[in-house]
Amino acid sequence: MAIGGILDGFPSGFEIDFEQLNLFLSKRKPGQSKLVTQRKEDDQVEFLSGIFEGKTTGTPIAFIIRNEDAKSKDYSHNKDVYRPSHADFTYDKKYGIRDYRGGGRSSARETVARVVAGGLAQQFLAAKGIQMQAFVDQVGSIRMPWKDQHESKLCYSETDIEASLVRCPDLDYSAKMQTLIEETKKNGDSIGGCIACKIVHVPVGLGEPVFDKLPAELGKAMLSINAVKGIEFGEGFGAVEMNGSEHNDTFDSDGNPTSNNAAGTLGGISNGQPIYFRVAFKPVATIVKEQNTIDAEGNATTIAGKGRHDACVVPRAVPIVEAMSALVLLDFYLIQNAYS
Amino acid sequence: MAIGGILDGFPSGFEIDFEQLNLFLSKRKPGQSKLVTQRKEDDQVEFLSGIFEGKTTGTPIAFIIRNEDAKSKDYSHNKDVYRPSHADFTYDKKYGIRDYRGGGRSSARETVARVVAGGLAQQFLAAKGIQMQAFVDQVGSIRMPWKDQHESKLCYSETDIEASLVRCPDLDYSAKMQTLIEETKKNGDSIGGCIACKIVHVPVGLGEPVFDKLPAELGKAMLSINAVKGIEFGEGFGAVEMNGSEHNDTFDSDGNPTSNNAAGTLGGISNGQPIYFRVAFKPVATIVKEQNTIDAEGNATTIAGKGRHDACVVPRAVPIVEAMSALVLLDFYLIQNAYS
Amino acid sequence: MAIGGILDGFPSGFEIDFEQLNLFLSKRKPGQSKLVTQRKEDDQVEFLSGIFEGKTTGTPIAFIIRNEDAKSKDYSHNKDVYRPSHADFTYDKKYGIRDYRGGGRSSARETVARVVAGGLAQQFLAAKGIQMQAFVDQVGSIRMPWKDQHESKLCYSETDIEASLVRCPDLDYSAKMQTLIEETKKNGDSIGGCIACKIVHVPVGLGEPVFDKLPAELGKAMLSINAVKGIEFGEGFGAVEMNGSEHNDTFDSDGNPTSNNAAGTLGGISNGQPIYFRVAFKPVATIVKEQNTIDAEGNATTIAGKGRHDACVVPRAVPIVEAMSALVLLDFYLIQNAYS
Amino acid sequence: MAIGGILDGFPSGFEIDFEQLNLFLSKRKPGQSKLVTQRKEDDQVEFLSGIFEGKTTGTPIAFIIRNEDAKSKDYSHNKDVYRPSHADFTYDKKYGIRDYRGGGRSSARETVARVVAGGLAQQFLAAKGIQMQAFVDQVGSIRMPWKDQHESKLCYSETDIEASLVRCPDLDYSAKMQTLIEETKKNGDSIGGCIACKIVHVPVGLGEPVFDKLPAELGKAMLSINAVKGIEFGEGFGAVEMNGSEHNDTFDSDGNPTSNNAAGTLGGISNGQPIYFRVAFKPVATIVKEQNTIDAEGNATTIAGKGRHDACVVPRAVPIVEAMSALVLLDFYLIQNAYS
Repeated sequence: MAIGGILDGFPSGFEIDFEQLNLFLSKRKPGQSKLVTQRKEDDQVEFLSGIFEGKTTGTPIAFIIRNEDAKSKDYSHNKDVYRPSHADFTYDKKYGIRDYRGGGRSSARETVARVVAGGLAQQFLAAKGIQMQAFVDQVGSIRMPWKDQHESKLCYSETDIEASLVRCPDLDYSAKMQTLIEETKKNGDSIGGCIACKIVHVPVGLGEPVFDKLPAELGKAMLSINAVKGIEFGEGFGAVEMNGSEHNDTFDSDGNPTSNNAAGTLGGISNGQPIYFRVAFKPVATIVKEQNTIDAEGNATTIAGKGRHDACVVPRAVPIVEAMSALVLLDFYLIQNAYS
Repeated sequence: MAIGGILDGFPSGFEIDFEQLNLFLSKRKPGQSKLVTQRKEDDQVEFLSGIFEGKTTGTPIAFIIRNEDAKSKDYSHNKDVYRPSHADFTYDKKYGIRDYRGGGRSSARETVARVVAGGLAQQFLAAKGIQMQAFVDQVGSIRMPWKDQHESKLCYSETDIEASLVRCPDLDYSAKMQTLIEETKKNGDSIGGCIACKIVHVPVGLGEPVFDKLPAELGKAMLSINAVKGIEFGEGFGAVEMNGSEHNDTFDSDGNPTSNNAAGTLGGISNGQPIYFRVAFKPVATIVKEQNTIDAEGNATTIAGKGRHDACVVPRAVPIVEAMSALVLLDFYLIQNAYS
Repeated sequence: MAIGGILDGFPSGFEIDFEQLNLFLSKRKPGQSKLVTQRKEDDQVEFLSGIFEGKTTGTPIAFIIRNEDAKSKDYSHNKDVYRPSHADFTYDKKYGIRDYRGGGRSSARETVARVVAGGLAQQFLAAKGIQMQAFVDQVGSIRMPWKDQHESKLCYSETDIEASLVRCPDLDYSAKMQTLIEETKKNGDSIGGCIACKIVHVPVGLGEPVFDKLPAELGKAMLSINAVKGIEFGEGFGAVEMNGSEHNDTFDSDGNPTSNNAAGTLGGISNGQPIYFRVAFKPVATIVKEQNTIDAEGNATTIAGKGRHDACVVPRAVPIVEAMSALVLLDFYLIQNAYS
Repeated sequence: MAIGGILDGFPSGFEIDFEQLNLFLSKRKPGQSKLVTQRKEDDQVEFLSGIFEGKTTGTPIAFIIRNEDAKSKDYSHNKDVYRPSHADFTYDKKYGIRDYRGGGRSSARETVARVVAGGLAQQFLAAKGIQMQAFVDQVGSIRMPWKDQHESKLCYSETDIEASLVRCPDLDYSAKMQTLIEETKKNGDSIGGCIACKIVHVPVGLGEPVFDKLPAELGKAMLSINAVKGIEFGEGFGAVEMNGSEHNDTFDSDGNPTSNNAAGTLGGISNGQPIYFRVAFKPVATIVKEQNTIDAEGNATTIAGKGRHDACVVPRAVPIVEAMSALVLLDFYLIQNAYS
């Protein structure tokens, strides 16, 4: 068994940096630090098509990642039970059949395919000057104040982010978040978190009016990630409390915007200013604490996670948010290019 | 000139309740109360195809709404200026040409087509037992506590909602919101708001795994509405602060869920429980207060709205949120039906 | 009632030549010559969006053509009868309801929308140097030998084609075809025909490998036209009888192809040589001769056309073939441009 | 390296008959008889997802077929030359890069993925009573007269077809075709052919009006197969020479159609009668005879095939025609089911 994907429409002649791609993949990988699940997933990507002598050929890029130890593992304990707040129940009802091994297709493991495809998209966009950066800005109620959202540059260095096991670039907040996650883990519980993302140097004009607005597609992309329960652009839910005179981005006498509360889009179309948004992740459903649930026959039973699960998913979800952003941006970049 | 749309794939043989549709449309209409813009838009829908003797024929339903007084109106003051936080700038840059009359296609007037199409979808879903209800739960910092989100029924009566000019079913909160809007208007300013929406009796199994999850499509639909800056499902951004043991929905000994923090979907697929979410609207960009901006040549200038604009958009956006929900649900309903 | 369409994705800033568009539309119009139906259709196009001060704005181009006399006409004779070889039966079974007025949506009248949209696409392509020309090369068993298919130019002048009521540029063959159509009409019958089409100066690289090959999309476009029963590219069914050594297009010592049996595509992608193909139209189903049929209750009855129908559809279908070609080409042109 | 595909939207809970699938695949395989190329391709399908314990799960069915000996083979002779009537030239120009190994993605080898996916679709449709049968009815100018096209049953037995190396069910014609192919091969040349296909017991109502007519999608599917240059439904190009009174399908007094010249669709929608069509294949481009061509620098050179290629492709293309038919039919079957 394997997981994989097909990335169609990728421009031809682009030289892939495989080392960088593997680095990107490693951020999602289990077992990367003491803070995340110690489950082993090797995540060795095999490209089956679309790349020739290190360059993309313009034809679909197919790739697979084998589940090395899936066969040997025992998933029979999942067979007859619906784990609370998992997709076991809905898959069973929708399809009348369920591949119970490791959660099957509803497993967060599917995000590895997003990171491969998005990693390639990100490399292409970077070559065009478009950069994106995600990081953890909240775990539980510990929220890091963000700085320089309105500036046309990435706010933090890669080193700052990677220096933190939580992937929070402010080391003080990172330390508090780490403590909270470790305590939560000790309690056999889990905790939610938020990932912030900023995209800079986006050309003016990306996004389609009405239904396929740029924030609409970014929102769909984020809400398609497991455990995501919300997204807000710019001031987001905070904008609700603001007046128009305060929220509007006016121009100074040199024609430069004095603020970027619009968060980089107007009417759904990029305006050249940075795009930034926050994504809310609920606490991981699988916990070590025993919980009440039902089996496939509807009988009451209890279930408890085996202990190798993440107590907080956001540190490992950072590359997923970047990957999905890159996939959306590259689509719009190419669409807009069709008219250039 | 006119606005309109084509609704393709609507089931045949369905009898349209035109009176109900007009009622639905009237909720979005300007000039409906002293609280909203007094601009006149007649919103008379003309159906051009897809309906025969009052029933849908299964072929595309095309409709137009004429802009009765568009020609006579003078929009030349918009011609050479980029209104702050409007799409004037991005449309001009994306297309190199801009229909400046009333904001053209980026005007909130395009939402009338959403309400027509969504109104038809809503009627069809209602005949299948699926109901949805949106209302205002926040204006500025005044937020109405919501009740009974987890219950499998609509929380408020239509009468409660329509009794409020703000479309907030709690009359105490409604009064406070109304006062805030009126004061904001007096100041020549605008204010943001939130719309809550609940969908009940959704069959189990709607939504597609991975990219086209039900919340992902609902999120895209909401973020495609003008002025929307965020969406959250269930506890949303509040879930970030919760523990898994608290957020998980466990089952009681009768096999019934004891809570619905999942807000009606698991793994992106409806689980039969109510779906509920909140949508954040930024304050309206057009305000009477004078603001600094630039003209199309990049020269500094000032601009001020003419006073017929909404000080708060959410009361009129309630049917839009319902309409977009209905369109998403009907798509998934038909897709799932293909496999029944 | 009206017919119309929406053309989405058309490039912005393009100046429409409305006179040329009306000329193009007039070729499809009934009543244009003694050879075709004398039914009156005014075909006055009204553009509702997407065009501003004569130029495209980049947003969807919506247009309608009113059926001026549809209401006054009496279609009740069609209500309870299934006309042989018409879509009455299949529409009734598929949708359970049928708009019997003039054949409703299965009426050949829907092709007017194709001609409007395709006419715009054709103008845009012409500005890029891509030209297309369709003409009648067969009526019944009278087939005009084609010349210069392999040459990189249009084969006939517009004047030659329009000098013929049949739209066959060889006047000898045209005369014979005209006589055959007139005799067929006198007999209360109808006759089939073929339309040839050639597209020149197509850039290399249009078309997508595997499923969305350029000939595949052109074939789909042609087979979507009412009454079309076949399409062949290049030698087509004649190629079946050829050897590879004869059919292959070799290169001369200057690197130029010595033939164009491939008809302008290799592996589904344009190679810069002319694309040419033939489209087979069955005889019109509505004839004056009385025919056996059944009514909606399944009872035997007879039916006879009222005499205002075309005895041969191909002269009026010439602009439809060009229009559909233009729509396919413009799509691929823009897709390819995304990667330039 | 590998070839493969993803079949999304396949209904869940369907038990795959892998033995039958392998049998179906073996019909496309090289080396199956002395008449076709002796190249070895093992075509061992590995399913990576979407099937669990022998049944489909409703999630995407991903599969790959490894190219066992691709690495060891030497394709460097293809590197710098454009084979006449191959896609080498167009791929190079479109993408600026070309995977020259075995023709890369433009290789007819890609059809194996179509046969796998189509084979699964065919099994599902068969369980619903919908059957399809393709066979060779023409090689060069030898054309077998077809019988019983209008009857609601498959015309030949599987045994009749498989008894012929050419897959022509009439043994006299088969023998003549075989001789022609063998002689052509001896001459180092290739020859074209036609495949006929009939689909029976199609429910009434499949196909969408206007652009996505059933014959339009079938036509696109066929024209997407390598080497196909034409398709005709029913009488096809022969219908051009017929009168309406002759071509129309009238009903007898019992309400049954007396003929099926419409070939199973009216207005693009299936009418319950058999669908039948013919597909024209040009002669294979790769021949042993030396031909003039150019290299990538545009210099004149010559090229000659290595002798392991098919002299006539149609015997091996029979399952491809069935597979593509099945994929189109299953799509429309599910779409129509959405409205049932």
